[in-house]
Amino acid sequence: MELDGLFKYDCVALSSGGDGVVVLDQTLLPWEERFLVLRDEYQVYEAIARLRVRGAPAIGVAAAYGLYVAFRRKAVQRDFKPDEASRVFHGIKDMLCSSRPTAVNLSAALERMGVCFDSLSGHPLEQVLEALRAEAESIKAEDVAMCRAIAEYGAGLIGRAGMGILTHCNAGHYAVSRYGTALAPIYLAHSRGLAPRVYADETRPLMQGARITAFELQKAGVDVTLLCDNMASSLMYSHRIDMVFTGCDRVAANGDTANKIGTSALAILAAYYGIPFYILGPTSSIDPGTASGADIPVEQRDPSEVTDLYFERRIAPSGVKVYNPAFDITPASLIAGIVTEKGIFRPPYDFSNLKLNENAV
Amino acid sequence: MELDGLFKYDCVALSSGGDGVVVLDQTLLPWEERFLVLRDEYQVYEAIARLRVRGAPAIGVAAAYGLYVAFRRKAVQRDFKPDEASRVFHGIKDMLCSSRPTAVNLSAALERMGVCFDSLSGHPLEQVLEALRAEAESIKAEDVAMCRAIAEYGAGLIGRAGMGILTHCNAGHYAVSRYGTALAPIYLAHSRGLAPRVYADETRPLMQGARITAFELQKAGVDVTLLCDNMASSLMYSHRIDMVFTGCDRVAANGDTANKIGTSALAILAAYYGIPFYILGPTSSIDPGTASGADIPVEQRDPSEVTDLYFERRIAPSGVKVYNPAFDITPASLIAGIVTEKGIFRPPYDFSNLKLNENAV
Repeated sequence: MELDGLFKYDCVALSSGGDGVVVLDQTLLPWEERFLVLRDEYQVYEAIARLRVRGAPAIGVAAAYGLYVAFRRKAVQRDFKPDEASRVFHGIKDMLCSSRPTAVNLSAALERMGVCFDSLSGHPLEQVLEALRAEAESIKAEDVAMCRAIAEYGAGLIGRAGMGILTHCNAGHYAVSRYGTALAPIYLAHSRGLAPRVYADETRPLMQGARITAFELQKAGVDVTLLCDNMASSLMYSHRIDMVFTGCDRVAANGDTANKIGTSALAILAAYYGIPFYILGPTSSIDPGTASGADIPVEQRDPSEVTDLYFERRIAPSGVKVYNPAFDITPASLIAGIVTEKGIFRPPYDFSNLKLNENAV
Repeated sequence: MELDGLFKYDCVALSSGGDGVVVLDQTLLPWEERFLVLRDEYQVYEAIARLRVRGAPAIGVAAAYGLYVAFRRKAVQRDFKPDEASRVFHGIKDMLCSSRPTAVNLSAALERMGVCFDSLSGHPLEQVLEALRAEAESIKAEDVAMCRAIAEYGAGLIGRAGMGILTHCNAGHYAVSRYGTALAPIYLAHSRGLAPRVYADETRPLMQGARITAFELQKAGVDVTLLCDNMASSLMYSHRIDMVFTGCDRVAANGDTANKIGTSALAILAAYYGIPFYILGPTSSIDPGTASGADIPVEQRDPSEVTDLYFERRIAPSGVKVYNPAFDITPASLIAGIVTEKGIFRPPYDFSNLKLNENAV
């Protein structure tokens, strides 16, 4: 596929010995590309909670690998008593599941690992470990295939050369195992010579747009311009934007979508300026168990993310109160389409037959 | 008036000897309250261009004082030849006028000084200097009176205790000579015991909301919560916001308003959530010579403001392209009212009889 030459490494992988999760520490981008090897559940939890690994699909893959690696470590250190293996496995699973609350991919990946474990009850531990490893590798392989499919469906929306596409946060190479979700069609259009012009919101407070999206697009040779989050309206007013592409952390059954804080504002602005707004993500981010956006829990993060510029210099007066939600909810009514690996869903959203693959077109 | 006890100093004043403009260096807030004494046109120009003095009304006052101080300095250093005084005066005036392009208060204040100067053609230099000083002092006194009037009209909108008001950038104590424009009614409501809850956008890239608005409100004992610009939609969605109050840099004849980048987004979001959006500013910011927002020049500022976090740490990849307009245009159709010292203008906006004071209600 045209995309394969663009990236030198995956941001989440299992170490060759199978005893560590290798992740790129994204908090150090764009200054340094440093890899970490996570060897137990505490390191995996910390890497997810501190956003060293981030992006809903990448978190799911890292957690699946992490559960395998952490359980394997305990298994080789001692002989489990009856029922102890299950208690240890599910303890690690529940702990990792609590590392971040909003993305459904995290709990979905861990649940898959749990089903795999439970189905092998009574089997020899070696066989269980082998199956867990294979399951985690499957989750990653499916993630890569999912990105490829989203790239193809999304590229169908990029109908001509030089289109202006606004994106928010990072739903690219560093948010998934390989190609990205919102950025995947952009990479594909770029590799096909369509020269998309990408505008990247810097994405306060943690600057994923400035640090990661601008970095990975520039590295891949894609035309990218950085802006502060509050400049999107001005950019749309100036007719530079043809479409908005963002990722998603969770899509409710009615199409309401949780994504990085600021996404709902872009959807409202796009509607005002008559610009189509698309969500791009795997069907694993669609949660039929959540009826609407009102039912999605939104993580509130530490005030210091806002008051201390990227944790370095305090920019706000001491003791000031801070509002710092990590996500917001974009109502389904503002979403022109949800681009998944199974096709593009269009309003009114109905995912009830998702497994039959009948709704996507 | 209830407001008088709230502030210890004015952010722009003439030095007691009349030979310097005393300004608080706002680039150092909230870390340090340091005063600068500007003694010539270069220092005044630099202070305005580098945003040491900022806020449309404060810039107008600083420029008027600066023109007086710089011209006086040249006048006491040498005997002017015929016509030289006028050439020198207008040279300084034109230079100061070019220090920032968008706010109409700057050119309006300098024009008033120019009319004053020209009307005294042929009079003794001492008399001219005295008149220029009096004119600059009048501009400031009118600014203070303007803020008091805006406070009263705007406080009429704060109809009950505990209202949530979102503001952007800084249109307060530090943006004018004394009480502020957008924040003046909030201070008045606060002093009357109505306990408004203020939400302050941090206002990237230069953080005037985090550094200045949060600082001055906190200092005055007003309940204030800081947020990143991209969190306003989430805040409105959560029903915490009853009104939006912002200042203005220039209002066109049709009501379209230029203000700090990000303002138009708030107006669009407010319309979507059914929240009234108000502009607050002096009638000197209304420019009947500008037909609509499309005719307002918008300053593009240096990329380093965006890429280097408050000029300290580079946060974006080296060489990335940047979009960095200082202002945006809010269409009149989204503005519930423009609160001036002459009353509240309501749509459809018509300022043609502004001097007769017939349109404001």
